Amino acid sequence: MALLTDFGQRDPYAGVMKGVILQHAPHVTLVDLSHGISPEDVLEAAFVLKGTASYFPEKTLFVCVVDPGVGSSRRILYVKGKHHAFLAPDNGLLSMILKEEEPVKIIHVSNEKYFLNPVSRTFHGRDIFASVAGYLASGLNSSKLGQEISRQSLVLMPFPEAVEDKEGLWNGEVIYVDHFGNLITNFSQSLLNQKKKMNVFIKGHVIHGLAQNFQESNGKLLAVWGSFNRLEIAVKNGNASKILNVAKGDKVRLECQTFSS
Amino acid sequence: MALLTDFGQRDPYAGVMKGVILQHAPHVTLVDLSHGISPEDVLEAAFVLKGTASYFPEKTLFVCVVDPGVGSSRRILYVKGKHHAFLAPDNGLLSMILKEEEPVKIIHVSNEKYFLNPVSRTFHGRDIFASVAGYLASGLNSSKLGQEISRQSLVLMPFPEAVEDKEGLWNGEVIYVDHFGNLITNFSQSLLNQKKKMNVFIKGHVIHGLAQNFQESNGKLLAVWGSFNRLEIAVKNGNASKILNVAKGDKVRLECQTFSS
Amino acid sequence: MALLTDFGQRDPYAGVMKGVILQHAPHVTLVDLSHGISPEDVLEAAFVLKGTASYFPEKTLFVCVVDPGVGSSRRILYVKGKHHAFLAPDNGLLSMILKEEEPVKIIHVSNEKYFLNPVSRTFHGRDIFASVAGYLASGLNSSKLGQEISRQSLVLMPFPEAVEDKEGLWNGEVIYVDHFGNLITNFSQSLLNQKKKMNVFIKGHVIHGLAQNFQESNGKLLAVWGSFNRLEIAVKNGNASKILNVAKGDKVRLECQTFSS
Repeated sequence: MALLTDFGQRDPYAGVMKGVILQHAPHVTLVDLSHGISPEDVLEAAFVLKGTASYFPEKTLFVCVVDPGVGSSRRILYVKGKHHAFLAPDNGLLSMILKEEEPVKIIHVSNEKYFLNPVSRTFHGRDIFASVAGYLASGLNSSKLGQEISRQSLVLMPFPEAVEDKEGLWNGEVIYVDHFGNLITNFSQSLLNQKKKMNVFIKGHVIHGLAQNFQESNGKLLAVWGSFNRLEIAVKNGNASKILNVAKGDKVRLECQTFSS
Repeated sequence: MALLTDFGQRDPYAGVMKGVILQHAPHVTLVDLSHGISPEDVLEAAFVLKGTASYFPEKTLFVCVVDPGVGSSRRILYVKGKHHAFLAPDNGLLSMILKEEEPVKIIHVSNEKYFLNPVSRTFHGRDIFASVAGYLASGLNSSKLGQEISRQSLVLMPFPEAVEDKEGLWNGEVIYVDHFGNLITNFSQSLLNQKKKMNVFIKGHVIHGLAQNFQESNGKLLAVWGSFNRLEIAVKNGNASKILNVAKGDKVRLECQTFSS
Repeated sequence: MALLTDFGQRDPYAGVMKGVILQHAPHVTLVDLSHGISPEDVLEAAFVLKGTASYFPEKTLFVCVVDPGVGSSRRILYVKGKHHAFLAPDNGLLSMILKEEEPVKIIHVSNEKYFLNPVSRTFHGRDIFASVAGYLASGLNSSKLGQEISRQSLVLMPFPEAVEDKEGLWNGEVIYVDHFGNLITNFSQSLLNQKKKMNVFIKGHVIHGLAQNFQESNGKLLAVWGSFNRLEIAVKNGNASKILNVAKGDKVRLECQTFSS
């Protein structure tokens, strides 16, 4: 079982969720995928989940709690895919994963029998998600959790993919800044997989061509296809975010010229 | 087994404790309850432990190392309660939990046979707590650890509960600020469980009435019964601590009017 | 298995490594030794590994990813010692551990059969280290990973040990600042183990003599043999790094006078 939340590292919130899970499933293996999602940033959670889920064992249950609507009438979903399963609020968090995972079953989690009692108004991660996850890990049939619902009824959140303008220039943005200050953009390797000459424009800087790895350009700005299969802008031995003063949401443009062969 | 410390996330201190524990108990399940207690803040640890322990499986051993007196003559305690067990310095860390858990047995941990050898002067978490915890998890009878002592001999630390003044106004304070900037106060739901009209005063702001959840008031200040069963002050989609410039220890007042029915 | 990286806490990088490991070795016990190594600081990783590895169970595999050369031609090593085993880049990270662990076998990890496919250019932690670690934990014979190589061929990184000058004064430096602000120096307890009168000089301050523990001097500067077996400079109930404005790399001098007995 893997946990993905915006709870941060300091508070006992992820720890107490594990306590609840272990009450029902004492032998489950628990992995912290990340608790570092920016507070209430559902889109960032969707992006991180999509970029990592495929690396986990078959049948891993991902418990995803980035849930600005906690306590409201937003639904909680159990989604069983071909390879993995997911518990998440129905707020778009699963939007990107649903493009990859063909859902075998989607359930509106509503059976209070599998929740803690009472359920607090502010911490469904502990009182609903963890409790239900523990039951599932201990073998509960998911059909007990509530009614099956259709994929069409889910809240979707469009991912801001880069778009090509009339002049053939791609307009994108920084969608994640990691701990090293690497700037992960929304330029997808799958969109741009032809061999091309590229120029990247960011905050008044131009990067000519793609680097093969972080080594190529010591101390200089470089662009590389990163581990999320997205274009990353980095500085070898430096923090690109600080050096360029670039944050999430800042614009990046990409000029591609197909090689005339 | 659950670990609660003020070691933070960056250093290898919690990791090395786990190494020692696993030497004795290779199959134990280890949960990080939190390593984010403010440095040497015994009262915060007591509060976090009290608010979370009941969510863990029966017989969980909580290894609690917030220990400003490390290396001094302060005692180390093993407390076996009805539901859970605890290893902690005798510095008040268990004060709040002892109100809930009827201790079946309290032992002054002193048998050096179960410590690492040598014991460093600055890291009893590794050299005593982890080693003893590993032995206990591998089946050691706790009576081997040292003499039984009485509850009356323990160091207690009074928790600063909110108090009512002559005019019926409750005076409390912020006792924990979480990662989201939510302000957790010492107003207890159990004290104030009658249906009342409430006004909350904090840093020149007034909050009229209680919200049902974080949803009710988008971008506005709200008060809600939180997951610690304490009154929390929050800003929907915002960081209340930053917006109000409020920190731990800052005063909060509460005016309650019983509904005339 | 223990993980040591510079990935920090916020990103999903350590979590996704665990996903890969668990694909091959679903029952392995995973410990986060630390993900808080300063970005790309190989020497700090070497120091932390040396100070902690001996506390882990026999046969623990340490997966160490502090790897500024990721994607370049730097080698990846599997080192089997008498007590523990290590996966690490050949960049000096194992320099200090190799003084302690007599390597039974050193292998240049090169067999792509045990890597993910494809291997990204920027995240060998996931695509090579985690995959190989999973195979090893599931029983793979390490000789399958690549050719055995000699200890002499490894990249070594000299640790900056304190040195004695002509006047008998020891010149050292701060090599690690922990979460509490304690300043861990490179003065080794083994070098200075005779009973001596000591004066420590740091940023214009003088500390006379050694404290027995952090208790001795409330609010004052003190020096103590710490848990890494190195001299630590601390402030009781305070953050020495902030109070003295001292950071990693800052100089410390030590004057030792052997007692005339």
